[in-house]
Amino acid sequence: MKLLIFEGIDGAGKTTIAKKLYEYLLNQGIPTTFYKEPHHDIPPNSSPFTQMLFFTASRSWLFENHIKPDLQQGKVVILDRSFISTLAYQCLLGGVDLTLTLELNKKILDDIKFYVFYLDLSPEIAYQRKPELDLETLEKLRNAYLQLLKGKAYIINASNELDKVFNSVKLIADEIVRASL
Amino acid sequence: MKLLIFEGIDGAGKTTIAKKLYEYLLNQGIPTTFYKEPHHDIPPNSSPFTQMLFFTASRSWLFENHIKPDLQQGKVVILDRSFISTLAYQCLLGGVDLTLTLELNKKILDDIKFYVFYLDLSPEIAYQRKPELDLETLEKLRNAYLQLLKGKAYIINASNELDKVFNSVKLIADEIVRASL
Repeated sequence: MKLLIFEGIDGAGKTTIAKKLYEYLLNQGIPTTFYKEPHHDIPPNSSPFTQMLFFTASRSWLFENHIKPDLQQGKVVILDRSFISTLAYQCLLGGVDLTLTLELNKKILDDIKFYVFYLDLSPEIAYQRKPELDLETLEKLRNAYLQLLKGKAYIINASNELDKVFNSVKLIADEIVRASL
Repeated sequence: MKLLIFEGIDGAGKTTIAKKLYEYLLNQGIPTTFYKEPHHDIPPNSSPFTQMLFFTASRSWLFENHIKPDLQQGKVVILDRSFISTLAYQCLLGGVDLTLTLELNKKILDDIKFYVFYLDLSPEIAYQRKPELDLETLEKLRNAYLQLLKGKAYIINASNELDKVFNSVKLIADEIVRASL
C-alpha cells in the first residue's frame, strides 16, 4: 500500500519528476503504476464548485477502478496531482467550501496511507519558466499549498536542477518503498 | 423563474410527456427550453458514490451554463430528471449519504423555485412495458420516490393512456406558467 502523490504549482516539474521516479522503480523491478489527475476531461465553463465536483468524481472513479486494485496487488502507485490540488485551486483560491470538499475526498481516500512530495518552486522561477502564468496567482497557490501541507509532506526544493531534485525524491521514495517489502 | 422537473421510475413516460409539454408551450408562444439529465456521459464501472458525484457535477454545469441563464431570461425550463433521481437511485437505493448529497445539490439549486411532476407508474406496468427491468428494484425505486416527494410534487397517475396523462400535466403546467405572466 504505497501511494506517492506529487503536488506543486504549475511549472514545478511534477510530471517530469513523477515519471522519472516511475521508470526508476520499474527498472528496480518494483511493480509500479503511474496516473495523472484528472483522469477525465473537465468541461470548459465550469465554476470552481463545478470543477471541484468533476475533479472529485473523476478521482473517485480512478481510485475505484485503478489505484485501489493496484495497491491491493502490492503495487507502488505514483500519482501526478490529487485531492490537494483541488483543495488548493478550487477551495483556497476558488472559494469552494473546504470542509465539504474534504468530506467528499476522505470518502475516496478512505484509509489509504499516502505520501506527498511537494515540489516547491518559487513563483518567480515558475513565471520565468512559463511566462503565460500569472505571478500573483502562483504566489497565492504556493501559500495555499504550504498552508495545507505544513508538516504533512516532503517539501522538495524544485528550484534546483532536475538531477538534484530527482535525487532528493529518489532517496525518500527508496526508503518508503523498501519499508513495504 | 419556472422550472418544471419530471421524475418517475424507468418506463413511466417522463421523456415523452416532458417533450410533449415543451412543444405545447412553444406552440402557445411561451419561450421554453428542454433539457435531459445527465447532460454529460457518466463513465461505466462507477460505484453509486462516484455516480452521485458525476451526476451532481454534470447538473451543476447544466444549471450554470443553461438553466440559470434561461430562467433569468424569463424562459420556462423543462427538465427530464434532476436531483431527485440522484437521491432516489444513488442514495436511497445505492446507499450513498443522503445528507451530503442534499447539501451539494442545494448549492446548485440555490433559491430557484421548482415544480416537480412525479409520473407515478405501478412497478408491474413498468415491468410489462420494459421487461428488461427488475421488478423488485422498480418497487424499491417507487417507494423511494414517494418517500422523497410526499407533499412536495404533483403526483400524476402515469398508468393511464398517454393523452390522459398529458392532459393532467398540461392543466397544472398551464396554471404554473400563467402565474408567472
